[in-house]
Amino acid sequence: MSARTAANTQYGLAPVGLNVTRDLSAFLATFHFEDLPEAAVHQGRRGVLDWLGCALAASRHPTITKLLSVLKSTGAGGQATVLGHTLKLGLLEAAIANGQMGHLLDYDDTHMGGVVLHASSPILAALFVLAERGPLDGRAFIAAYAAGFEAGVRVGQSAPGHYDGGWHLTGTLGTIAAGAACGRLLGLDGQQMVHALGIAATQASGMQQNRGTMAKSFHAGKAASNGLLAALLAQQGFDSSPEIIEGKHGFSRTYSNVADPELVLQGLGARWEITRNGYKPYACGVVLHPAIDAMIALAGKPPPDPNAIARVELRVHPHAVKITGVRDPANGLQSKFSLWHSAAVAYLDRAAGTAQYTDARAAAPDVAALRERIEVSTDETFRKDQASAAIIITTGERYAAMIDHASGTVDNPMSDDAIEAKFIANASPAVGAERAQNIAALVWRLDTLTDVRSVVELCAGS
Amino acid sequence: MSARTAANTQYGLAPVGLNVTRDLSAFLATFHFEDLPEAAVHQGRRGVLDWLGCALAASRHPTITKLLSVLKSTGAGGQATVLGHTLKLGLLEAAIANGQMGHLLDYDDTHMGGVVLHASSPILAALFVLAERGPLDGRAFIAAYAAGFEAGVRVGQSAPGHYDGGWHLTGTLGTIAAGAACGRLLGLDGQQMVHALGIAATQASGMQQNRGTMAKSFHAGKAASNGLLAALLAQQGFDSSPEIIEGKHGFSRTYSNVADPELVLQGLGARWEITRNGYKPYACGVVLHPAIDAMIALAGKPPPDPNAIARVELRVHPHAVKITGVRDPANGLQSKFSLWHSAAVAYLDRAAGTAQYTDARAAAPDVAALRERIEVSTDETFRKDQASAAIIITTGERYAAMIDHASGTVDNPMSDDAIEAKFIANASPAVGAERAQNIAALVWRLDTLTDVRSVVELCAGS
Repeated sequence: MSARTAANTQYGLAPVGLNVTRDLSAFLATFHFEDLPEAAVHQGRRGVLDWLGCALAASRHPTITKLLSVLKSTGAGGQATVLGHTLKLGLLEAAIANGQMGHLLDYDDTHMGGVVLHASSPILAALFVLAERGPLDGRAFIAAYAAGFEAGVRVGQSAPGHYDGGWHLTGTLGTIAAGAACGRLLGLDGQQMVHALGIAATQASGMQQNRGTMAKSFHAGKAASNGLLAALLAQQGFDSSPEIIEGKHGFSRTYSNVADPELVLQGLGARWEITRNGYKPYACGVVLHPAIDAMIALAGKPPPDPNAIARVELRVHPHAVKITGVRDPANGLQSKFSLWHSAAVAYLDRAAGTAQYTDARAAAPDVAALRERIEVSTDETFRKDQASAAIIITTGERYAAMIDHASGTVDNPMSDDAIEAKFIANASPAVGAERAQNIAALVWRLDTLTDVRSVVELCAGS
Repeated sequence: MSARTAANTQYGLAPVGLNVTRDLSAFLATFHFEDLPEAAVHQGRRGVLDWLGCALAASRHPTITKLLSVLKSTGAGGQATVLGHTLKLGLLEAAIANGQMGHLLDYDDTHMGGVVLHASSPILAALFVLAERGPLDGRAFIAAYAAGFEAGVRVGQSAPGHYDGGWHLTGTLGTIAAGAACGRLLGLDGQQMVHALGIAATQASGMQQNRGTMAKSFHAGKAASNGLLAALLAQQGFDSSPEIIEGKHGFSRTYSNVADPELVLQGLGARWEITRNGYKPYACGVVLHPAIDAMIALAGKPPPDPNAIARVELRVHPHAVKITGVRDPANGLQSKFSLWHSAAVAYLDRAAGTAQYTDARAAAPDVAALRERIEVSTDETFRKDQASAAIIITTGERYAAMIDHASGTVDNPMSDDAIEAKFIANASPAVGAERAQNIAALVWRLDTLTDVRSVVELCAGS
């Protein structure tokens, strides 16, 4: 008995099986909607609403316009709705488009279980496309959504060196998550689910090298499309390795310099990963959120004139500087990777929504002037969702704020009202305020719907 | 100056640039067809003919039937020909289908430059789909084909630990090769080519774990489709990292535990990778070919009765046992990964074509009986294209054969006549003997064609 198996037994968790892929697949194929605690179901409602808003907010973005012009030209005929558009595309193409939309503004949800995964863009882009093929009820939809979280997060946990290896987890793990979710919605049995995971995982890709480019959000779209294709192939009898996670050349070892496949099964059925999902109040990476919280907290205090600020002292976890270290962003996209920009604009605008990450705001003189006065230091003892900020004004006075848990994290979650308000703000420009309200009302009772297509229809362009 | 840069200067090779991705892209976008030596152009003709035969031979395979049933159901409307079928699909879907066909029988070409890449399935599946959109001449087509080889092989050389890391290179490097080839055929400029490579590489995937399953040849189809999509997006202004090969989180470091990005530019324009392409006389991995050669060489000698064989001594490079170590294959697909099956069936049938790797032949009593009498030993001093075999008959006599270079390698190439005969045998069941002859005649003068669609039209079903 391994140390881990012993620990599992000691804590009453699921015993570690020898065949990780098989056991995970059997679970994903056979758990019941009724097994989900209400907290998981409610995160399902919240996650769907939040993600639809993120996708609709990006539906007219120039990057999406370019993407759609290509996808239309590849000649794909249409069954599947492109969110916010009257256009329909083939299933694989629509999944790419909707998945990229969902992630494009860096505004979509983030899992808080040690695996930096934006799971909903790959999962939901694939599921909504699949749901358009026939009547599928909201309970099946939520169960599939939860299955996607279990697969994506747990496989990620089996590959502890995965993130540091340079992978963009929303691309890699997102493919597996989407494959599992679609497999579940298609009603695959355990053996077919093994193959859905195997065909999905073998398509997993996305490099961190593409951070700050259009290719980054494209990863989410491809994850959705690849996962969907994997599940459809598995349903038709396509096969793959029965050990795609734990095998000698399987995911845990190929995508990570250290492997811990046993973690996949730990607490399966007892802990639901969807309940550890966080939502973003700000349209940028979660790593920036505590600093933004701190600056917004200070914005309510004197001085009213930013010119009176001598300097800002910002203290963050080192990770924040590592991945959002752009000092002088050249455009809106780059500004999402700038701790300096985010702190400055949050103070000035008391917000960090899509309006704060435009090309115009990245170039604005007031933001640039304040950016220059921000001094960042790092603190190894901080958690990643922790930050402090202090404003020292020219007369020497000092105002300080400390954030222990960034808003939107599991420890300081956004309220349902805040999620709905974010959705309405995101969705209204694309579908109008009235339809946005109608979509929200439907999604809050998602588990009672007999046909999820009613949601998709409201999210199409008119 | 690094040791490598010094060596390059000493030998008059291209100086090592600081920006590998940029310099490679500029080369791929700007070299002229006239820069290709006749040997490269001729490998273009040979490669196209050989690959079309492999694809047509697999066009009615049950795996392709399953794949096509899914791709039709995703609702993709049709512009692009599925080889051997009257069916047309969207560009992305047709590239998947044709790419998987090309690789399915393990009969397609293999690059001999230290990178185990079956380049033509990803490259040509993508190029033929693209060529159907409008009149493109054969010279542009061959130049694009050569560009794909340069990109795929050279990026592979920059990641020396890539294969041992568990990757299926036809999936990973094939995506980059297809992206570069399509970018070239689309006439992208150097900057757009940077992005074509960046968007292609970030989709690179395929695990060796799926060897022996339907997912393996699927990798080649996805590589074709993903590379095609990358080039189309780059043409529309999609961007990506300018350092996707050499960057801190770029391909060389993410996909390999050791990185040598400078190798990408070494001898660029002086050495053409397409000239180092090998073709397979046998329908299985090249690693098996020298052993098959040896057994066929012995088949011409006594004894005429296989039952008189006491034992067979087979001596191979250790790699052959490592990746084709299946002793008792359960079906035709598994038999392609069996050194024992390959040696036995080659001796009995004096051939190792598609007919030798069927479910029936894998289960045949005569093959099984001989398999059991084969004793394999490994020799570290052998090259991978080297093998020896000895047959010891019951009366004690011994017949031996030594193969120094397997047939089909660069050192012992298939003749043009042998390539054409293989094509005719492969293509005739799908398109008929007369059209097969017509296709061969067209492809032998590929560089004189004004519209490559004439080849595609003959390869469609009727």
